[in-house]
Amino acid sequence: MKKRLFFRCAYDGTHYSGWQKQPNAKTIQGEIEEKLSRLFGNQSVDIVGCGRTDAGVHASQSYFHADLPTNFAPDQLRYKLNNMLPLDIAINEIVEVAEDAHARFDATRRTYYYFLHQHKLPFHQNDSWYYPRKLDVEKMNEATQFLLGRQDFTSFSKLHTDVNNNFCDISFAEWKHVGDQLRFEIRANRFLRNMVRAIVGTLLEVGNGSIAPEEVRNIIAKEDRGAAGCSVPAKGLFLQKIKYPYL
Amino acid sequence: MKKRLFFRCAYDGTHYSGWQKQPNAKTIQGEIEEKLSRLFGNQSVDIVGCGRTDAGVHASQSYFHADLPTNFAPDQLRYKLNNMLPLDIAINEIVEVAEDAHARFDATRRTYYYFLHQHKLPFHQNDSWYYPRKLDVEKMNEATQFLLGRQDFTSFSKLHTDVNNNFCDISFAEWKHVGDQLRFEIRANRFLRNMVRAIVGTLLEVGNGSIAPEEVRNIIAKEDRGAAGCSVPAKGLFLQKIKYPYL
Repeated sequence: MKKRLFFRCAYDGTHYSGWQKQPNAKTIQGEIEEKLSRLFGNQSVDIVGCGRTDAGVHASQSYFHADLPTNFAPDQLRYKLNNMLPLDIAINEIVEVAEDAHARFDATRRTYYYFLHQHKLPFHQNDSWYYPRKLDVEKMNEATQFLLGRQDFTSFSKLHTDVNNNFCDISFAEWKHVGDQLRFEIRANRFLRNMVRAIVGTLLEVGNGSIAPEEVRNIIAKEDRGAAGCSVPAKGLFLQKIKYPYL
Repeated sequence: MKKRLFFRCAYDGTHYSGWQKQPNAKTIQGEIEEKLSRLFGNQSVDIVGCGRTDAGVHASQSYFHADLPTNFAPDQLRYKLNNMLPLDIAINEIVEVAEDAHARFDATRRTYYYFLHQHKLPFHQNDSWYYPRKLDVEKMNEATQFLLGRQDFTSFSKLHTDVNNNFCDISFAEWKHVGDQLRFEIRANRFLRNMVRAIVGTLLEVGNGSIAPEEVRNIIAKEDRGAAGCSVPAKGLFLQKIKYPYL
C-alpha cells in the first residue's frame, strides 16, 4: 500500500541544472528521486514538484509530493533521506496528505525573493547579485503597481513554453532594504518561466533611470518579450513560500 | 611622500590559503598586495594585518595598514581597489592614521564568532559547520566561565609557533542561538594559533556529554595540547571585530 506524502524542502541551486530531471545533468529532482528510489528497494520513484526552478535558482521553501510505501514513519523517512542527500538539499518536513493532493496544481500562492547588493558583500556571492549602479528604489516601487492584478505577462515570459496562456494574477510586489541587501518580493497565483528575473531586470531599468515607472504598463501591454528588460542572474532568485489551502 | 593608512576589510576565506602571504598559494594578503602594487606603478607594497587567519577562516571585520603615496583620496583608493579585488574580498573603509599606528600591535580586543548548525542549512555550507549531534548548550555555557581571565592557553595552541608566551586574557565567551544557528562568541586581547577552533572543539565535548564543564579548568591547567578536544573545521570561524584605542 502506498500513501501520498508532501515534502517541504530547501535547496541551494548553485551547483544544479535546475529542479527538473534531465538526462546527463545534476538536478534537484533527479537527486531526490535517486535517493528515494534507493531507500525503497530500488523501485523507481517519481516526485512532483510545486514548480520548476531554473539552473542556479534557490528555494528557501519548496514542496513536492510522492506516493510511497509505508515502510517508514514520516520523521524517520525525513531523517534517512536527509542523511543520503547532499548538504545543499534539505528536507524540512514530511506530512501525509489526501491521495488526490497535488503539489503543483493545488498551490494557490507562490512568493519569490530576488536579492541584490550594491556594495561588495563577500558572503553573498552565490545568493545575491552584485549590482553597483545607483538605484532610485522609490521609483522602482512606483513601477511595481503596474504589475498588480490579473494580466497577460507574455512580455516577461520565455518564448515557446508549454503553457496555454500567459495570464498571472500578481497580488504583491515590493522592493525593500534588508540589512546590506536590496530585496524584491513578488507574490502571484503562478509565474511563467523566467518571469521574475525579467521583471527584476525591467525594474532595475526604472531604478537606474533608463525608463520611467509608467513605462512598465506599456511593456506589459505590448505582449512582446523584446519590450522588457534583460533577465537578471539566477543566483539572486529564491522560491520563498508556497501556499496550499490545506497546509 | 607616503602616508600610513588603515584599511577595514571583509573576506570569505573559502578559496584562500589563509591571510598570510605564501609562495605558490592564493592568500588574502598576497591578493591585496598585488592589487595595491598595480595601483601604485608596480612598486612593491607591504601590508600589515591585525592578525593571521588560517586557510578557510573568514573575516567580517579585519584591519591592515600600509604606507602609501598620496596619489588618491582614501575613498577613491577604496573604489579602485574594490574594483580590482575579487568579489570575496571587500575593502569597506580606508582612513589616514598616525605614522606609528600599527594594525597588529595596537589592537586591544579581538572578537571571533564560530557558527554551527544542527539541522541541514543549504545556504550555510561555506560559513557554518553542520554538527547534528545533540548538544546541551547550558552546560557549554557553564564551561565557558573557566576560560575567562588571563591564563596560559598552551592546551589550546598549535605547538611550535613563534610567540614567546601563551598567555591570553579572555574577557567574554558565550554560546547563543541565533536564528537556525548556534553561535559561539569569544573576545580576548590576543589569540594563539588555532586557539578558538580548539576551544570550540573542547566545548562541544562538554555539550555532547563526553566531559563535564569543570573539566575545562583541568585541561587549561595541564598546559598540554593533547588534553583538549579536536579542532573544529575552519569554515565556521569568523574574525568579527577588532578594537583600537583610536578608531
